[in-house]
Parts: sequence; structure tokens; C-alpha cells
Amino acid sequence: MKLGVNLSFAIKRWIEPAALADVVAEKLGVTYVQYTWDLVDPWWPAATRDRLARAQADALRRAGCVIESTFGGLASYTYNHFLSPDEDLRRLGHEHLKRAIDMTAAMGVPAAGMPFGSYSAADALDPARREDLLKIAEEMWIDLAEYACSQGLAELLVEPVPVGTEFPTWAADAARLMTDLDGRTAIPVRLVVDWGHALYEPLFGKEADMDLWARTCGSWIRAHHIQQTDGQLDRHWSFTREGVVTPRRLRDHWDRWGLTDQTYFAEIIYPFETPDEIVLDDMIAGMTRLRAAAAA
Amino acid sequence: MKLGVNLSFAIKRWIEPAALADVVAEKLGVTYVQYTWDLVDPWWPAATRDRLARAQADALRRAGCVIESTFGGLASYTYNHFLSPDEDLRRLGHEHLKRAIDMTAAMGVPAAGMPFGSYSAADALDPARREDLLKIAEEMWIDLAEYACSQGLAELLVEPVPVGTEFPTWAADAARLMTDLDGRTAIPVRLVVDWGHALYEPLFGKEADMDLWARTCGSWIRAHHIQQTDGQLDRHWSFTREGVVTPRRLRDHWDRWGLTDQTYFAEIIYPFETPDEIVLDDMIAGMTRLRAAAAA
Repeated sequence: MKLGVNLSFAIKRWIEPAALADVVAEKLGVTYVQYTWDLVDPWWPAATRDRLARAQADALRRAGCVIESTFGGLASYTYNHFLSPDEDLRRLGHEHLKRAIDMTAAMGVPAAGMPFGSYSAADALDPARREDLLKIAEEMWIDLAEYACSQGLAELLVEPVPVGTEFPTWAADAARLMTDLDGRTAIPVRLVVDWGHALYEPLFGKEADMDLWARTCGSWIRAHHIQQTDGQLDRHWSFTREGVVTPRRLRDHWDRWGLTDQTYFAEIIYPFETPDEIVLDDMIAGMTRLRAAAAA
Repeated sequence: MKLGVNLSFAIKRWIEPAALADVVAEKLGVTYVQYTWDLVDPWWPAATRDRLARAQADALRRAGCVIESTFGGLASYTYNHFLSPDEDLRRLGHEHLKRAIDMTAAMGVPAAGMPFGSYSAADALDPARREDLLKIAEEMWIDLAEYACSQGLAELLVEPVPVGTEFPTWAADAARLMTDLDGRTAIPVRLVVDWGHALYEPLFGKEADMDLWARTCGSWIRAHHIQQTDGQLDRHWSFTREGVVTPRRLRDHWDRWGLTDQTYFAEIIYPFETPDEIVLDDMIAGMTRLRAAAAA
């Protein structure tokens, strides 16, 4: 199985380009990388932002890494973006992803992505309103795919979330979005499926099942976020912990569905208060367990 | 005791101005409010940003609320700001707070604040480097206090955090910062002390003690963040949960230290995946328990 790492574990800690590259390439021994906007905020003034992001990307590449995509993290996920109740807020969602596309292009990375958007509590309860807002959001993503194409990107990515007031949430939602966008975007829009989201039992119950996602959305799944979880919250635990996502299970899924290039990005999120040395040791131990399953 | 609420619980959920005001003033029955930048990002284009933030502030005030301050939340805390290893990043920290001051002024709110800044993993291990960066950061806050004064603000606020690689962390750090800035800022810079930060045992051990904070920094403490916690992580649980911060303990502290105006802002943070109706019911129940202790 093709292992990679999302850089969320590194935020605030290893942010100097050389330090980041050393941790990822040398300490963790990882080649495939998904860069998080939690390292450099797409909203920052463009010239400084691109200089900072490019310096990190260049250092990672010099160390042998391949940055496959850039992705929204905690800061981006704090806001509603494309499914906001207010037109100004939706336009800010458009501007946010547009700026992230600019940053991604400046970094020389071929793909960018994020969750699609969040309804307000009131809108989430109104099916007609949800549908209207979804249509508007789809048009904005079609527009942004054209923009991303013009900036040299090859792909945009959407991450389904385990939140009933957002979209897409269920595997059927994701398939509907992919079908809606199919043939209408200048570059493909594809899915990043997070195992901890898909296996969230309080919402999905018996449909907390990665095989369901593979059956329903298989051909649209471009990459995975992998995390350890107990299925009761969106944990983003390391694979040093016990949980429902064993390295063996990841490997079985890879083999059973004949995956070849749909990178498993370990997206491990530590509390800000966890000491740096514990994070580093734990990341190394978790990646070692994953690599053992990949090699088995 | 003077109870208030930080709006972190509401992000993504109750963001329409009328919905936000209804939840805070009617459902929770709260008067004193600390607005979070997780509702409106200081980095957004100024005209739209200020229109959105002002609409929420106006709706809260029409419902009878008093917004005492605006404060950095999750999105802001994702980045290192004033103690970054890189001059560009430090300047972005300056620009970030400057933009938040502009937004706060546009909202007609008299104070703004955030944690002070985060060192990189490497810098945190180098005492001389920490000291150099702290000096630079202090100069930037002195400059920003002058700017905030010119924009009509009355106060800037700093929140200590339970993270050894940031600053201020310990009560003595906070006292040192207040002493360093004393008499050098155009408007006062004061502290917001978070109970769950102060009571974080893995770092502070026997110094996980709010009386120590009151003794060391009492005259500089302008407000508190209150949260329920087990003392083992920065939980931001609701007061419907058991933990080390009972409403009775909050009341005892208020009485023992003769507090009068240092608002206890409940800063409750829910997982994004918690359903809206559970968040609302839980917030109502938690505030009811706090009010009972205030009235006792």
C-alpha cells in the first residue's frame, strides 16, 4: 500500500523548511506528502504567503518528498464556506479556495482540496434550502476548477465529513456530488475519503463501512486520510493506539479493492499541549507500524 | 459572580445574526459576551469582514448583550504569530492582530485579545533565542497597543496557554510579560486566564492552582475563560460534565479573591460532529448550573 503523511502533525512545531523536511523525510522516512494550509494560511498576503509555502515545498522536495496535494486543515474547517447562509460568506468560501489554488500553483503542487462546505443549523433542517445552496456551491466549484486549470493544477479534491449539517456526508452524498460535477469541470474533482469520518458510528451506524464507500464511490476516490479511531468521535489518533483501524485492516482493504495509487495519508492530529518530543516519537512509531503492514 | 459566554460553541452552527442573538440572549439568557474570531476571520477582506462582524454584534446588542471583547479562537491559534522563527511570519502575526483590532473597532467593541505566540520546536529549546524573540514580540505588542488606542480600543488582552513551547505559560511568565509592558503601552495590556489552562497537571503539577495565578497576576487579570476539565488535557468541556472545575469552586474563588468585574466567560468547545440540538441543550444546562452557583 502507498503510504504518505498529511502535515497536520507538524503545525506550530516543525515549521522552518529544513526542520520540516528533516522530520518528514529523515525521521519519518515518508515520501508522499499532503501539505496542510494550517502551515501557511491561504488568506495571508499573496507574495509573503507564496514565498513561505514555496520554501517549505522546496525543502521537502530537496529531501526527496513528493507533494501530491495541498489541503484545508483546522483553520479552514472553522468556517462554513460554500454552503454558508449568506452570499458574502459563500463568496469568501470561493475566494478562500481560489487563494489556496494560487498558493498550490506557486508551490508547484498539482492538486488542492478541502471539505465542501457547512450549512448553518437553520439551513441544515430545510431540505429545499439545502438543495438550493448545494446548486450554488456546485457552480462555484465548477468555476474554481476552470480557474485551477488555468493555474496549471490537475485536480481539485473534496473531503466528505461525518457531520449531518455539512455536505457531502454519506457515501451516497459523495456519489451524487461526483455525478453532478461529472463532465462539467475543466479538471477532475475527486474525493479524499477519511477512514475516521467514514467509520463514525453515532451518525452512520451500520453504514460506518469502508467497503460501502469503495462500492459507492470507488472510481472517484483519489486518496485516503487514515487515522486511528474508536468510531465514537473524529479522533485522528496515531496508529500507536488501539482502535478500529488496524494496519492489517488498511492493508486488507488495499488488496481487496485492488488499490494502486490512492495514497493513504496518515492525518494524525495531536493536542496543541502535547510536547514536541512525544509527537515526534509517536509519529515515528505509528509510521513504523503502518510500514510493517505495507511490507507484509 | 459575573457570568458571560465566549461564542466558540456557536461557530458554523448559529451564524446568522438573528440566530446567534436568539441563542445567546434568549436560549442561554447570557448578557456578557466575548466574540470569537472563529465567527469572522480577521484575514477576510476588510469591507465584507466588518459588515459581517458588525451585523452579528448589532444583533447581539439589540437583544440586550454587552460584547466586552473579541478574541482569537481555533483558526487563529493554528499559527505561531509573534514568536515565529521567521521574520515574515512574525510580521504576519502583527498584521493578524492589527486586522483583528480594525474589526473590533468596526464592531464597536472595546477590547481584543489572543494568545501571545508560539515558538517553533527548535527555538523553544534555546533560551537565548526565546529571549530575543520575546523582546521582538513585546515591541510589536507595544506598537499594536498604540494602534489599538488610535482606533478607539481601551485594552488589549493576552491569554496564557498550557504549552511549554509558547509564552506566557506559567503564572510567573505572565507576570513577567505584564511587568515588561507596564507603562510602555498606550492602552493597558491585560490577561485572560483560562481555568483549564491553569489547571493542566501534566505541565504544571503542583502549580496547577488558580490561587497561584490570583496571587501572582491578580491585578492584571481582566477576565477568565472557564471550562470543565479533568486537568489532563485542555478539554473545554461543558459544566454538565464532572471534573475539577465545579461551579462551587468558581464561586469560592470569586468570593475569596473579592472579584467584581473579571467576567467568567464560559468557553465551551464541542467536536464539529456533535449535533446542533445536543450542543444547544448542553449549553443551556451548563449555563443553568453556573447561574445556580452565581445566585447561591
